[in-house]
Amino acid sequence: MSWAALKPDRIEAVINMMVFDARGLVPVIAQRHDTGEVLMLAWMNAAAVRETLSTGRACYWSRSRQSLWRKGETSGHVQRLVDFRVDCDADAVLLLVEQEGPACHTNRPNCFFNVVRDGQLAVISEPIED
Amino acid sequence: MSWAALKPDRIEAVINMMVFDARGLVPVIAQRHDTGEVLMLAWMNAAAVRETLSTGRACYWSRSRQSLWRKGETSGHVQRLVDFRVDCDADAVLLLVEQEGPACHTNRPNCFFNVVRDGQLAVISEPIED
Repeated sequence: MSWAALKPDRIEAVINMMVFDARGLVPVIAQRHDTGEVLMLAWMNAAAVRETLSTGRACYWSRSRQSLWRKGETSGHVQRLVDFRVDCDADAVLLLVEQEGPACHTNRPNCFFNVVRDGQLAVISEPIED
Repeated sequence: MSWAALKPDRIEAVINMMVFDARGLVPVIAQRHDTGEVLMLAWMNAAAVRETLSTGRACYWSRSRQSLWRKGETSGHVQRLVDFRVDCDADAVLLLVEQEGPACHTNRPNCFFNVVRDGQLAVISEPIED
């Protein structure tokens, strides 16, 4: 499956209809296109949206490093873009992706592994062995 | 399916391990527990987390109204809590829910109906008739 890169003017049209917050960011949900598993929540600024839509690979904005975060650039755990969706208020994004390897930096399949069980938070998944 | 309400001290323990942003908020993804459909992205403050975990119904913080938003209180489109998950950094939440009726205020099943198609954003779902 491969993403048909958008032309630059089309990318700018998408960016122009999106609503970024005071920091210039939107929250982005990454979901596996095949199983529906929610993988992670991250952030994009306009430059990250531009790169994602032109390359077909998820690129976020790292709030901690204050720089573009090309997901999987060092780990190899890239997310290939299948669909890019914007919500009713245009201030949140849902990416459908093909995930290579684990999505979480803890090496778990997804980031949402702390779950309320028996009245308290429990860890429900283990890191994947390399 | 019914949510076993957490005891107040357990709720405070969950809140205490969560990381709220400078506005006192965390982004919250709501997902259908049965189909995996991502319904919406909203926000919670500590009070909204407290109410959600004690009532078993999704309660958000409305940034526009600056008040608690008991989802479905006027529309009837409530979200019954099935699972409450916190991510690796404890700064994002994933709710698995039973959704009554459409989740979106536009009366669509979910809020992510603006989708890149043929190089531009297209609307891919219609409002549900009452």
